[in-house]
Amino acid sequence: MDLRSFLTSFGTSFIIFVVLMFLFTWLSRKPGNQVIYYPNRILKGMDPSSKTRNPIYWIKEAFFSSEDDIISASGVDTAVYFVFLSTAFRLFVMAGIVLLPILLPVSATDHSVIKQNKNAKNSTSTNSTINEFNKFSMERIGPGSPRLWAYMIAVYWVSLVTYFLLWKAYKHVSEIRATALRSSEPRAEQFAILVRDIPHAREGETKKEQVDSYFKAIYPDTFYRAMIVTDNKEVNKIWEELEKYKKKLLRAETIYAESKSIGSPEGVRPTTRTGFLGLYGTKVDSIEYYTEKINEITPKLEAEQKITLRDRQLSSALVFFTSRVAAASAAQSLHARMVDSWIVVDAPEPRQVIWTNLSLNYYSRTIRKYVVYTIVSITILFFMIPITFITAFTTLENLEMLLPFLRPIIEIKSVRTLLEAFLPQLVLIIFLALLPMLLRYLSKAEGIPSESHVTRAASGKYFYFTVLNVFIGLSLGGSLFYNIKRLKGKPEAIIEVLAASIPYSATFFLTYVALRFFVGYGLELSRVISFVIFHCKRKFLCKTEADVKEAWAPGDFRYATRFPSDMLILTITLCYSVIAPLIIPFGVIYFGMGWLVIRNQALNVYVPSCESFGRMWPHIHTRFLSALVFYQVIMFGYFGVKKFIYAFAIIPLLLMSLIFAYVCNKKFYRFFHHRALEVMCHELKETLDIDSVYRSYLPPSLNSDKLDDDEYEIV
Amino acid sequence: MDLRSFLTSFGTSFIIFVVLMFLFTWLSRKPGNQVIYYPNRILKGMDPSSKTRNPIYWIKEAFFSSEDDIISASGVDTAVYFVFLSTAFRLFVMAGIVLLPILLPVSATDHSVIKQNKNAKNSTSTNSTINEFNKFSMERIGPGSPRLWAYMIAVYWVSLVTYFLLWKAYKHVSEIRATALRSSEPRAEQFAILVRDIPHAREGETKKEQVDSYFKAIYPDTFYRAMIVTDNKEVNKIWEELEKYKKKLLRAETIYAESKSIGSPEGVRPTTRTGFLGLYGTKVDSIEYYTEKINEITPKLEAEQKITLRDRQLSSALVFFTSRVAAASAAQSLHARMVDSWIVVDAPEPRQVIWTNLSLNYYSRTIRKYVVYTIVSITILFFMIPITFITAFTTLENLEMLLPFLRPIIEIKSVRTLLEAFLPQLVLIIFLALLPMLLRYLSKAEGIPSESHVTRAASGKYFYFTVLNVFIGLSLGGSLFYNIKRLKGKPEAIIEVLAASIPYSATFFLTYVALRFFVGYGLELSRVISFVIFHCKRKFLCKTEADVKEAWAPGDFRYATRFPSDMLILTITLCYSVIAPLIIPFGVIYFGMGWLVIRNQALNVYVPSCESFGRMWPHIHTRFLSALVFYQVIMFGYFGVKKFIYAFAIIPLLLMSLIFAYVCNKKFYRFFHHRALEVMCHELKETLDIDSVYRSYLPPSLNSDKLDDDEYEIV
Repeated sequence: MDLRSFLTSFGTSFIIFVVLMFLFTWLSRKPGNQVIYYPNRILKGMDPSSKTRNPIYWIKEAFFSSEDDIISASGVDTAVYFVFLSTAFRLFVMAGIVLLPILLPVSATDHSVIKQNKNAKNSTSTNSTINEFNKFSMERIGPGSPRLWAYMIAVYWVSLVTYFLLWKAYKHVSEIRATALRSSEPRAEQFAILVRDIPHAREGETKKEQVDSYFKAIYPDTFYRAMIVTDNKEVNKIWEELEKYKKKLLRAETIYAESKSIGSPEGVRPTTRTGFLGLYGTKVDSIEYYTEKINEITPKLEAEQKITLRDRQLSSALVFFTSRVAAASAAQSLHARMVDSWIVVDAPEPRQVIWTNLSLNYYSRTIRKYVVYTIVSITILFFMIPITFITAFTTLENLEMLLPFLRPIIEIKSVRTLLEAFLPQLVLIIFLALLPMLLRYLSKAEGIPSESHVTRAASGKYFYFTVLNVFIGLSLGGSLFYNIKRLKGKPEAIIEVLAASIPYSATFFLTYVALRFFVGYGLELSRVISFVIFHCKRKFLCKTEADVKEAWAPGDFRYATRFPSDMLILTITLCYSVIAPLIIPFGVIYFGMGWLVIRNQALNVYVPSCESFGRMWPHIHTRFLSALVFYQVIMFGYFGVKKFIYAFAIIPLLLMSLIFAYVCNKKFYRFFHHRALEVMCHELKETLDIDSVYRSYLPPSLNSDKLDDDEYEIV
Repeated sequence: MDLRSFLTSFGTSFIIFVVLMFLFTWLSRKPGNQVIYYPNRILKGMDPSSKTRNPIYWIKEAFFSSEDDIISASGVDTAVYFVFLSTAFRLFVMAGIVLLPILLPVSATDHSVIKQNKNAKNSTSTNSTINEFNKFSMERIGPGSPRLWAYMIAVYWVSLVTYFLLWKAYKHVSEIRATALRSSEPRAEQFAILVRDIPHAREGETKKEQVDSYFKAIYPDTFYRAMIVTDNKEVNKIWEELEKYKKKLLRAETIYAESKSIGSPEGVRPTTRTGFLGLYGTKVDSIEYYTEKINEITPKLEAEQKITLRDRQLSSALVFFTSRVAAASAAQSLHARMVDSWIVVDAPEPRQVIWTNLSLNYYSRTIRKYVVYTIVSITILFFMIPITFITAFTTLENLEMLLPFLRPIIEIKSVRTLLEAFLPQLVLIIFLALLPMLLRYLSKAEGIPSESHVTRAASGKYFYFTVLNVFIGLSLGGSLFYNIKRLKGKPEAIIEVLAASIPYSATFFLTYVALRFFVGYGLELSRVISFVIFHCKRKFLCKTEADVKEAWAPGDFRYATRFPSDMLILTITLCYSVIAPLIIPFGVIYFGMGWLVIRNQALNVYVPSCESFGRMWPHIHTRFLSALVFYQVIMFGYFGVKKFIYAFAIIPLLLMSLIFAYVCNKKFYRFFHHRALEVMCHELKETLDIDSVYRSYLPPSLNSDKLDDDEYEIV
């Protein structure tokens, strides 16, 4: 890719961005679109119309919002995400301030490689296209040149700044987590623990009695009661049927009411067919039919609820305590002599519980985990092959050759430039959109009990996927055929080959980052897609108020993919920061703009679906550090390629990274896994209604007013 | 070593054993020696003279004693040691029952290697001496012979039996530990936790106030009080001086009293000189002088005690709770947000506390640990060199050559045979006796807070030392020069070389095991050395009753060296069990006799110095399994040497070992690290005197009647 196509791509991205920003300014002013641009505020009961119509007002608001605003609007996890964004932003700002003024002159004034190339005459086409753009990259420095010391110092600077910022960030996040946990607002999950792998009860004893007597003996003062997890498959089926009919009844009633106001005063009673999908069968009056169905199913549900609670008890339970310290302490203590029974962990939030996973036993969880890891590894390894092919495809010459019928279109000059600029990036983005669902499904299959934990697990897998396949795969793929002969028989040369091939992909990734921040954040802010979908739905599908509300429900942040793609940008920018320092401003814009745009979305749009009090951070921290280590290794290899005999000066940095990781882990990590007692022992604001805590955990299919307290107690 | 010298060694060992047994029978009957042969009983206040004078009575008693007898006489740790001995014993019995009848005929009827050697004519002297003895070893099987399948099956049998026995043993030990912990006898350490890395107190707050307020907030109901660890160096010095003078005063008074009864009724008042070691200076009346000194020091001690308690508070504390469950739960919970402060662990027993280590902070402990590991690794690696030299030395030919003045002695036939039989083993045993003290010192320097933990750490280091140096070193050393050309350029061939050289050392290790059980256990039972030392001391040094009691104090089991040397025998026997099955009976005798002899010692002699409730077992289990894996690897190499193409059939066994280790670890381990709450929640027999628990932890130098409760409270 040469300078012209880079500029085309950059320019087009920018134009799209401007258009999207215009759309956003225009659409967000219309009161009818408030549900698209301020759903979080609306759901919180705040009035969004009080906002001024100034188009840059949102920037001011986002910029001046404090961390506490974010926490109250969107929770601790979102605040932690902003810590990540600002850490990355600061890192690249501090790197840019030092690296750009030092490294650009150093490389721009070195002509040794160019001279070499001129002498050698047979310089490949790859080299010549690179030289056009990479005037300011490390590529220009001659082998063994003392100028490489400047780059070595740059690597040290970037690493030290990273340690410093990560340390500060970990400390800060730990603070945020502690403040949130210490809060005097009682939260249901702080009073409960999840108990798994309950052994078989003695003859003539129910699980409930077993669990009660077990915990009463250990915690005579603080134990409140236990909720045995049941097999809810049957009862859920009936409950869902009931809910479906209730919804249909509501819809039919709305239609009937509307017909009254529009047509005849008696209205037209809606009808439905009883057959498959309402397409055939006898025609009946909808309202009567659904009411009848509901009356028929309700007693069935109640009977099933009783049976489930009595006979379908599984080997896990939620145990409730009357004090937060007791629950926090219980979740950390070994209860049983055999460590694979009575396993206790922190209870997930009620809305996060994955009921079907709770009763899997310890060894089946372990086996599932390893099976999933194997599948994911295979997926990562074998996606390598298509990615390599895609990269080979995405030169237009190949495309013309392989798909000759496209030639007339490609031959058009403007189309050609556009395609050349966008094709590889577009293919990549679409390709990456396919994976998250699979990874989420696989993470769930591991037997993890909470949604936020599944998000973390999926995000980890996605991170390894993107870094391994997108970054390494594309870097290597671009120059794989050029380098394959150097790899033969020496698999340990992979780092050197990777390092040598990195500069060849610099412009590709520059374009990729620009595309991501212009188009990505443009779409994010303008919410064009959500806007279109909502208006279509409202027009054609929504009947009742609830339907409309469902149509504009903003969803949550989707951290499982958000983090890994930010991490990919971070890794790319970090790895190129010294080799091609021109990428740094792009990184700065990505994370700066991200901070601003997402801040607006956090305040006004997204509604987090769960709260893990920052348990994501240790993962982010580890991956941030992995990216740094990866960068250091790449630089070590690249100094080797440059025949710089002091390349080993990187080794102390690698050691420092490991020690830093160890110290951070020892100092901070355990508090993100367990709740520290000194934090949990703060007084509550009000006396606690422990029964409501208990009830908040009841699954909706079992939560019935008819089943009063005694029903549960009998079981 | 040929058959003759093996028989000489075996015979001599046996004769020594018979002599020692005779000595034991003779000496143990004399009432005056009861303090040597029954000290544990005497210290427990039981009368040993009720025993019959039947010389084999001790065997009957040891054989029929139950596990509960052992626990009540010598504690849980000793019972766990017997579980280890009987597991090893059973393993070799079950291995012998199957392997001896199958493998001996298989090898005895195979003549392929002998034929080869005859054909080759140039068979080395090494081979010819081996063939004489190893008629029944795997060495005789020809390369690639189908008879090797029998050996493969034998490896499987031994491994499966090991898994089965280890599983049973772990379960059993877990049971013993649970029963002992569950006991309704309150033990001081069950009510306390050790808190380390206490952060700096706020201005104007003492450590004591800080700790009290911290724990009172978290455990308002169960917190009793805290004991801050102080820097006792000064006060200890004064206290020791005081104790010395008290002892001297008692001795002087005893001498005076004796002189009264022997000589004139007024007696002779003993005198002493005030100078260095009582050798010069003015002569003074001892009793007066010492009394004066004591009166002088006592107020100094009291003043120093107050200063220590007030001003020398360090950053760690013992915290006491009023209930066992609370303490057990507190020791497992994360207290502080920063994980490197307020670190809590189970409190050690009062007698085990290593006060000087308590206040080391977390990072200094970590650094110390790695420094110690480095030193130990270097020690292990560089002892390799002397050991190899020793093995080369211990052929008499070398000795004659290097030390020619010894020739006339060595030339005497009987001396020569004796030397040939014993020299290598004696050198080895003396050599191994040098190390434990160093290892113990190093383990203490790691910053470990309790004596039993130091024992475990030292024992681990000693195990790696013995296995790496004695077993591998001697095996390789014996044939190192023969094999060195095969190692060149292929360091991964080490397993093959090791496997190939193993059969050459079979007779050496056979003799070593026999020496260990005949002479080792003979000395153990007859206690000849303790007997001689005691009688010398009583004759020349002891003045007072206390001196005599100190002279016959039996000491404890010294597990730090006992376990590793048993483990060495286990590893040797296991590794040779299939290659040279004749070693199995020796292993059976070693562990059977060991069980019997040590049982007698446990019931009658040794007094355990600490109790860790079987926390040694996970270490034993891991090392037992390591020995098994080592054996499997060696067999894999040896099948390779034998050119057996199905050698890979060992791989599933290696995998099984790893899975077995994982499952055992997950199922059992954590209970050995923490106290399970279900075990600790049992009722106590009597109401607890928590103040006496607190006082039991006071170091003797601070434990004064004058310092009453308020003194501690003020601090």
